[in-house]
Amino acid sequence: MHLSRRALDIQPFHVMELLRRARELEAEGRDIIHMEVGEPDFPTPQPIIDAATRFLAGGDVHYTGAMGLPQLREAISRFYRERFSAEVPAHRIAITPGASGALMLALAATTDPGDEWLLPDPSYPCNRQLIRAFEGIAKPLPVDPDTRFQPTSDHVRAAWSPRTRGLMVATPSNPTGTLLSQSELTALRSEVIQRKGALIVDEIYQGLTYGVESSTALSHMDDVFVVNSFSKYFGMTGWRLGWLVAPESHVRVIEKLAQHFFIAASTPAQHAALAAFEPRTLDMLEARRAEFAERRATLLPGLRKLGFEVATEPQGAFYIYADVSKLCDDSETLARRFIEEAGVATTPGLDFGEHHPRRFLRIAYTTSQRRLIEAVERLASVLG
Amino acid sequence: MHLSRRALDIQPFHVMELLRRARELEAEGRDIIHMEVGEPDFPTPQPIIDAATRFLAGGDVHYTGAMGLPQLREAISRFYRERFSAEVPAHRIAITPGASGALMLALAATTDPGDEWLLPDPSYPCNRQLIRAFEGIAKPLPVDPDTRFQPTSDHVRAAWSPRTRGLMVATPSNPTGTLLSQSELTALRSEVIQRKGALIVDEIYQGLTYGVESSTALSHMDDVFVVNSFSKYFGMTGWRLGWLVAPESHVRVIEKLAQHFFIAASTPAQHAALAAFEPRTLDMLEARRAEFAERRATLLPGLRKLGFEVATEPQGAFYIYADVSKLCDDSETLARRFIEEAGVATTPGLDFGEHHPRRFLRIAYTTSQRRLIEAVERLASVLG
Ligand SMILES: Cc1ncc(COP(=O)(O)O)c(C=O)c1O
Ligand SMILES: Cc1ncc(COP(=O)(O)O)c(C=O)c1O
Repeated sequence: MHLSRRALDIQPFHVMELLRRARELEAEGRDIIHMEVGEPDFPTPQPIIDAATRFLAGGDVHYTGAMGLPQLREAISRFYRERFSAEVPAHRIAITPGASGALMLALAATTDPGDEWLLPDPSYPCNRQLIRAFEGIAKPLPVDPDTRFQPTSDHVRAAWSPRTRGLMVATPSNPTGTLLSQSELTALRSEVIQRKGALIVDEIYQGLTYGVESSTALSHMDDVFVVNSFSKYFGMTGWRLGWLVAPESHVRVIEKLAQHFFIAASTPAQHAALAAFEPRTLDMLEARRAEFAERRATLLPGLRKLGFEVATEPQGAFYIYADVSKLCDDSETLARRFIEEAGVATTPGLDFGEHHPRRFLRIAYTTSQRRLIEAVERLASVLG
Repeated sequence: MHLSRRALDIQPFHVMELLRRARELEAEGRDIIHMEVGEPDFPTPQPIIDAATRFLAGGDVHYTGAMGLPQLREAISRFYRERFSAEVPAHRIAITPGASGALMLALAATTDPGDEWLLPDPSYPCNRQLIRAFEGIAKPLPVDPDTRFQPTSDHVRAAWSPRTRGLMVATPSNPTGTLLSQSELTALRSEVIQRKGALIVDEIYQGLTYGVESSTALSHMDDVFVVNSFSKYFGMTGWRLGWLVAPESHVRVIEKLAQHFFIAASTPAQHAALAAFEPRTLDMLEARRAEFAERRATLLPGLRKLGFEVATEPQGAFYIYADVSKLCDDSETLARRFIEEAGVATTPGLDFGEHHPRRFLRIAYTTSQRRLIEAVERLASVLG
């Protein structure tokens, strides 16, 4: 039976193999410190759990409309206004199954076979695969610490071709944790828009910034796609809930695509998320952000002391993308040694692109201070 | 900004316009009987709600693996064994965001641009759109009451071309509620497999049959894709949870695609669904099936008396696909009259394909006996 070329081309996550090994070791009784996972260790905030439980007590768990619960779309619109002074009308907001669903919709709505998308290398692995899924071609823009691993107008100008459909960026970025400033974003937008391209800004790590205010592209532009999610800042990974803000011109087709791709996002998750913007939830989330900041303040110097190079300090998300070339000439080999000899799981650069992937390791501070300190000690003894 | 050709081609659900009108009328205080919706009116069974609530009390709502919770995959495998004597190993079962997610994965894994898929006309509207989304071409097989609106080997042989990738069927079918017998399915499979094609069998209405035992293609074949869901029989539409049974040859690529498309299905939904196969849940579901059977026994003769023709009796799902050509020469006009003059919402054939769509109306018995009786009375007064 036939396998599509798409299916053959699409790459698995390399980290999965490492995860499998981690699980094997755990089954043998070894203690593994997980610094490879892209999800906060925190539970879902209690007010969100409570809202879900209250909703479920009614038992009526039916489909919502394809764009989502009107009151949730309104709540997000209000959040943009109150937190970021951005006017985003609710009708431009589609509630989706995670940012994953939002990325699918934005790409499906804009990409014809053979269309090229520019995106930084390294970046979030699924982006390349979703572009491929809709028969587009991912054109990596190799980025380095000198631009904080973010693309610049120069990158875009140099790489744009007649087949280029647009540019995808993320701020804060996965795997690098670095941000785009508003002026950088505005410059990128103008390069893209003057070429009649589309700009997708992934803001899934919005709210998780350290030493800088969090922000949104939507304060300054409304002719771009903005992807967001309840997964990371709001601590709701497993609920599978995100959203897409579409440009006015694309709202109608996004709704049609959402009807057919998903019917709708999870109803319990949508009712739960209504509690995400309550003041007491936001207080809890700000406390967690402070906790992430402390973890970062522990881990970053700890790693540097061991010879990990972090030339550009990450100001967001919960990742450190470290250059390990002083320690080993292949980050995958190093990741293997770390897991086998120290019981510490990390993600080699391989998953994020082709630009010096063997020089970099992504280390997530999604585990407690105590465990981070222990991890640094264990790595020290391996490297020592 | 560019709209993809895919986005321009994809059709909205026509019934949405009717739904909008129904909501307007409701807002004006009119009482509308909803017979247009494809979801049971029943709440989610209490044991499933309870399982979710227990799980949520823990607060740890993290991503599961892309293929789903091992214990849920095992539970489904056991269900196939115990209910249908079918051996379906858990590793072939992918837990997905609804049957919608399962259909996406199966199509993405097999369809190259320009590939043709055969599917009955009328059939579930999203199928055509999902084929289009992955750059395939839907080739409708016009089917009529004489084959119970199901395709036959003759249809497949006549329509197969060098570009045909496979055949999609549903049993019970939406919109017609008709079944394929095991021997018909086996015959279709052999036509498809001898041409090295793929067969997708949508069993989302499995369990909802009247006067016939429910069944699965998997009792007789393992080289096909089987799509299923917790939405309909299990009363879990809003949870967005389904599954795909993949042929051994495709398990690996389905896992890769699921990682990138969805990361995973909803975690609370997966924990909730663990209670779906408990004996007391199944007892409740069987009682609901008996209730559906009674509704069908009320509605079918009621409609026939009014001049709706139902040449082939539906034996499954919760739909009646009635020929209304004796009543009106356009089912869409009739549906409009029904909603305006009688406050009864139905779905015109237009949503399901191009084969005599204006002759047919889909009427769902997803509302109570009392309301069905009232609906028939209201229609009678319109039809005078
Ligand atoms: C940059 C980025 N975008 C999107 C996603 C998808 O997340 P979700 O679908 O859980 O919202 C992730 C998940 O790690 C991510 O890192
Ligand atoms: C035949 C058929 N397949 C698939 C679906 C998708 O349902 P879900 O994604 O809720 O499982 C439906 C929904 O009505 C359907 O009728």
